[in-house]
Amino acid sequence: MDILLCGRFDTGERELWRSALAAAWPQGHWLDEAGARAAPEQVRAAVVANPPPGALQGLPNLALVQSLWAGVERLVTDPTLPAQVPLARMVDPMMSVAMAETAHWAVLSLHRDFVAYARQQRQRQWLPHPQRRADEVRVLVLGRGELGRTVGRRLADAGYQVAFWARDDDLDSALPQADVVINLLPLTPATRGLIDARFLARLPAGAALVNLARGGHVVEADLLAALERGPLRHAVLDVFAQEPLPSDHAFWTHERVTVLPHVAAATDPRSAAAVVAANLQALADGRPLAHLVDRTRGY
Amino acid sequence: MDILLCGRFDTGERELWRSALAAAWPQGHWLDEAGARAAPEQVRAAVVANPPPGALQGLPNLALVQSLWAGVERLVTDPTLPAQVPLARMVDPMMSVAMAETAHWAVLSLHRDFVAYARQQRQRQWLPHPQRRADEVRVLVLGRGELGRTVGRRLADAGYQVAFWARDDDLDSALPQADVVINLLPLTPATRGLIDARFLARLPAGAALVNLARGGHVVEADLLAALERGPLRHAVLDVFAQEPLPSDHAFWTHERVTVLPHVAAATDPRSAAAVVAANLQALADGRPLAHLVDRTRGY
Repeated sequence: MDILLCGRFDTGERELWRSALAAAWPQGHWLDEAGARAAPEQVRAAVVANPPPGALQGLPNLALVQSLWAGVERLVTDPTLPAQVPLARMVDPMMSVAMAETAHWAVLSLHRDFVAYARQQRQRQWLPHPQRRADEVRVLVLGRGELGRTVGRRLADAGYQVAFWARDDDLDSALPQADVVINLLPLTPATRGLIDARFLARLPAGAALVNLARGGHVVEADLLAALERGPLRHAVLDVFAQEPLPSDHAFWTHERVTVLPHVAAATDPRSAAAVVAANLQALADGRPLAHLVDRTRGY
Repeated sequence: MDILLCGRFDTGERELWRSALAAAWPQGHWLDEAGARAAPEQVRAAVVANPPPGALQGLPNLALVQSLWAGVERLVTDPTLPAQVPLARMVDPMMSVAMAETAHWAVLSLHRDFVAYARQQRQRQWLPHPQRRADEVRVLVLGRGELGRTVGRRLADAGYQVAFWARDDDLDSALPQADVVINLLPLTPATRGLIDARFLARLPAGAALVNLARGGHVVEADLLAALERGPLRHAVLDVFAQEPLPSDHAFWTHERVTVLPHVAAATDPRSAAAVVAANLQALADGRPLAHLVDRTRGY
């Protein structure tokens, strides 16, 4: 089977993926964009990471677009993506583990006041704070997909009070019960700008926000206002409206904002290649494909 | 039974302990130092937190000294401590949980490069690092007591490669295999100054030290040298030769040192009071006492 591997990769990353994918599914004939253009009717599947618009057009027998990333909001809003071809998200178990690690680190940093001790260190201030137990901290996970469930399970195992929110649940009653909100939602028209002034105002005093999903979920000006005037104590942000975060952005120097450079969880080529191989084998066998995106829903 | 509650407590802490202990063992008659001096022959047990030297003398029927702290290095070296009276350490399950939380946070901070991202934030630098899996990180836990075992179990559950070292094991062969060393040893004549230039030089390049035990374990000048000239990448330090850490100490401003103000794990009066009550009940019943200190060994 001819497969197009296509996208914008960092240096060395394309070759890393190519060798991991070839090892995971050796029966595939892996092509770059020039190779696909040479015999477009042969291409049955495309494995993509941020493909340039139009890259998937003119492939008459394309039967699967498999994303290497979990977030597909750019793909589903790309008008050049062939409308009838099934689109699959990446659901990489190692990426979920990495996300759970980052979420756990952020919750520990807040629960055990390590963010405050880092601030105190800069001021040479020796001041222990009272120690709380994990079961005294209420965590609200936004999103109940693979990532949300993995993160919530890990935090519950660590002793935290964990609740979930997903669309159709009542958000107004969930927010006042949340000491830490962790955002793991997909970015869709329904969730864009969800974390705004109204959302933040419903949190209890001293609550914290951990955004590990997409910058588009947060109205950044409202977040800054909630840090200044309450109720927010701290924000751990991995994603931003504009990435890289512009060097003059207020988040960089805000003493109650932790800035991460979009590193909460990367797809791991070693485990993700096996996920791709399973879907390619399903396509070859005519079996149902996994992790398909509902394009009207957006994820 | 008359019990002396005695020590140097922070504001409010004495009353917190007194009420927790009275609730956990209501059959006790809890005395302060003045109360004990009024009828010294009645005092059967002393529950202590950093007692002033001499506070436990002149109590002819004292049959148990129960420490509220896990570390007893000051008690065992206090020449005024009655030599024949059994001395028990605190082994508080909630304190072990708190220690595991701090150790896990420190290991996550190192493994997932969050210490480096904090440095980058101060420089407004957006630079993702390669993501490693937990099973690629080798953690060496110094100490195989209650704390070491709880910490090691938690880290192994989280996927790290965990090894233990305790006295009688071969340290020279363990250190070159350690990406992160977590110190949870008791402070004794045998362990004082253990983490010196020779110890640090055996670590692999890029290793990190997490000291959650006692400042006396570390030769601080050697630690600073190992951060400057290698092999140490970072140190997370909760304890110091002098506490509070003097405001002119180099650790405060060192960009590869995380300073915590001795907060890795506090005894939790709610759970620790039950541990004290169990030992007092054993004393009342004439059953064996738990968590006794071997004074020649020092812990």
